[in-house]
Amino acid sequence: MTAAEIGKELVALCRQGKNMEVIGRFYSPTIESVEAVAHPQIGQVQKGIDAVKGKNQWWLDNHEVHKVEVNGPFPNGDQFIVHFTYDVTPKHTGKRMTMSEMGLFTVQQGKIVKEAFFYTM
Amino acid sequence: MTAAEIGKELVALCRQGKNMEVIGRFYSPTIESVEAVAHPQIGQVQKGIDAVKGKNQWWLDNHEVHKVEVNGPFPNGDQFIVHFTYDVTPKHTGKRMTMSEMGLFTVQQGKIVKEAFFYTM
Repeated sequence: MTAAEIGKELVALCRQGKNMEVIGRFYSPTIESVEAVAHPQIGQVQKGIDAVKGKNQWWLDNHEVHKVEVNGPFPNGDQFIVHFTYDVTPKHTGKRMTMSEMGLFTVQQGKIVKEAFFYTM
Repeated sequence: MTAAEIGKELVALCRQGKNMEVIGRFYSPTIESVEAVAHPQIGQVQKGIDAVKGKNQWWLDNHEVHKVEVNGPFPNGDQFIVHFTYDVTPKHTGKRMTMSEMGLFTVQQGKIVKEAFFYTM
């Protein structure tokens, strides 16, 4: 599958909240994940599919998700960008907020080998 | 200036239609510009600031711009992403349309050294 094709599947699954299914189907075992800034609980860089699953599970366990908007994919060669807008309540603050971030995904041989998230805290 | 700081300036200037001023102020002489697909008139990759100015001038000469929305910047390290939405009429078709694309910009030593545009034709 091309980056554009994987992007379409990723967007469709994320709109249904099936982020874990995306990881299982499309992520390379050697996936590298890079946050925009170092997060107190999860750090900035995760390497390997188990670490990335762990980060996603932490996120799900610590946020109440009211709504997700997923815009894209926007492809270019072996990469694509997706715009995520989350309407969430982080459990540690209890304050409902909007998170807007871009994900940049890099594909090699039909698998996502890198994801990087772009946002301002 | 950091990538995030340059991103803020770029967004502010692009909202005013001052794209050429962005190039003059922030682009490296060795800028590389990569479109998502090869364009019949302008190709896919431009190298050097004169080639990039030429592409921008071609675009301005061949599109009637009704409105531009610029969302961002979304930074991560030495890169940032900006979402551009153009309400335009290409002169060769005469048909008003919306173009939605992501720009991924890479900064080195205070200058933008690469821009890549992500979209579906």
